[in-house]
Amino acid sequence: MNHRINLLMFSGDYDKALAGFILANSAKDIGLDVTMFFAFWGLFLMRQPDKTVENDKTFYEKIFGSVTPDNPETLPLSKMNMGGLGKQMLINMMKDKNAPRLIDLIQEARENKITFFGCKLSMDIMGLKKEELIPELQVVTAQDYLRDAISSNLQLFI
Amino acid sequence: MNHRINLLMFSGDYDKALAGFILANSAKDIGLDVTMFFAFWGLFLMRQPDKTVENDKTFYEKIFGSVTPDNPETLPLSKMNMGGLGKQMLINMMKDKNAPRLIDLIQEARENKITFFGCKLSMDIMGLKKEELIPELQVVTAQDYLRDAISSNLQLFI
Amino acid sequence: MNHRINLLMFSGDYDKALAGFILANSAKDIGLDVTMFFAFWGLFLMRQPDKTVENDKTFYEKIFGSVTPDNPETLPLSKMNMGGLGKQMLINMMKDKNAPRLIDLIQEARENKITFFGCKLSMDIMGLKKEELIPELQVVTAQDYLRDAISSNLQLFI
Repeated sequence: MNHRINLLMFSGDYDKALAGFILANSAKDIGLDVTMFFAFWGLFLMRQPDKTVENDKTFYEKIFGSVTPDNPETLPLSKMNMGGLGKQMLINMMKDKNAPRLIDLIQEARENKITFFGCKLSMDIMGLKKEELIPELQVVTAQDYLRDAISSNLQLFI
Repeated sequence: MNHRINLLMFSGDYDKALAGFILANSAKDIGLDVTMFFAFWGLFLMRQPDKTVENDKTFYEKIFGSVTPDNPETLPLSKMNMGGLGKQMLINMMKDKNAPRLIDLIQEARENKITFFGCKLSMDIMGLKKEELIPELQVVTAQDYLRDAISSNLQLFI
Repeated sequence: MNHRINLLMFSGDYDKALAGFILANSAKDIGLDVTMFFAFWGLFLMRQPDKTVENDKTFYEKIFGSVTPDNPETLPLSKMNMGGLGKQMLINMMKDKNAPRLIDLIQEARENKITFFGCKLSMDIMGLKKEELIPELQVVTAQDYLRDAISSNLQLFI
């Protein structure tokens, strides 16, 4: 059986998301099986622009859905974001090196058939609907996450 | 022997604390043994309101004790806190779904007999006294943490 | 073979860096092998003051190199930094207890022969040169990190 890694993607920060997807894709490159579990702010990484649902949402869910990013490229940095200035500088530096953008890394992860889990409880609380997220994402419980993670050889909370 | 998980609770953020205690209680539900090691800001999760000690504290320790939260419910979010506005919105959304509050999850963890470790060095530096924290918390060294963590099947830094 | 731990040092926060190096040195004390992998903001922990290189850097790399800390002692806290006020209070409280400073802990880690890995991709993007960093740091890929981490008994993302 292959060695496996499990990444709990909690943060919705651009830089931490880059780290998570670079690790996930690199792991695939060396033959490891990879599960990514998106919880809380991490679910923003799985949102599909222009798929926002308005029906069946409470007042708070509608506000929450509209003030939070629906496109991973617009996520802020965990530090030195400086109102977007630091983020833009990082983006420019990445472009100078032909480094892939976050959305490219997410696309690569999808093509790599990485297992995407989404946290049911977070989705319930935030009012995120399954159809707003990338279709191959499976909605699971914390217990499902734990069963996958405990049998993995490497687990990180990102 | 049971499988075991070990969560290093470093951050004192409300949202990350929710995640940690949801994982801890879910792990108990599926028969895993759980240790939570509270270090640095994470120790705020173990403070008991109205048990603040003033005696035997230095000038800085007294200030530190009084400007930091002694009630987990008052902890800020790691992001989108917006001076408490984002936090209040999240609390309202959780209430709409009948999701347990952080203090409920902590209470559940106590009833679940989860092992609580507190970092001795952090307590020394911050001037937190054992009697200010939940009674079942054991004060341990980083080495004690490592011995527990290294023999666990899943470890996270939260 | 010894048990091994692997710490991915992503954050450049003073408090999280303290935690990482205290764990690393404590692990050595109880006979564990330790690898620290410095990526992104974590690379600031490996910079050597006054070794900043200006040649062969792009416009952005020069700005980035000069606005970011080249001395670990100047790193901010992950929270309650309050423009440096909270940080100074913490430093004073550490001094009261004769707790080692971050630079002391880094020095101890060097003497402990802890394995230091630096993330090649992060260095490329940020324009950090090998000669700006502590000499014993080995520049490695994400795949190299994964190979080391997956065969470790404890891994954390800090």
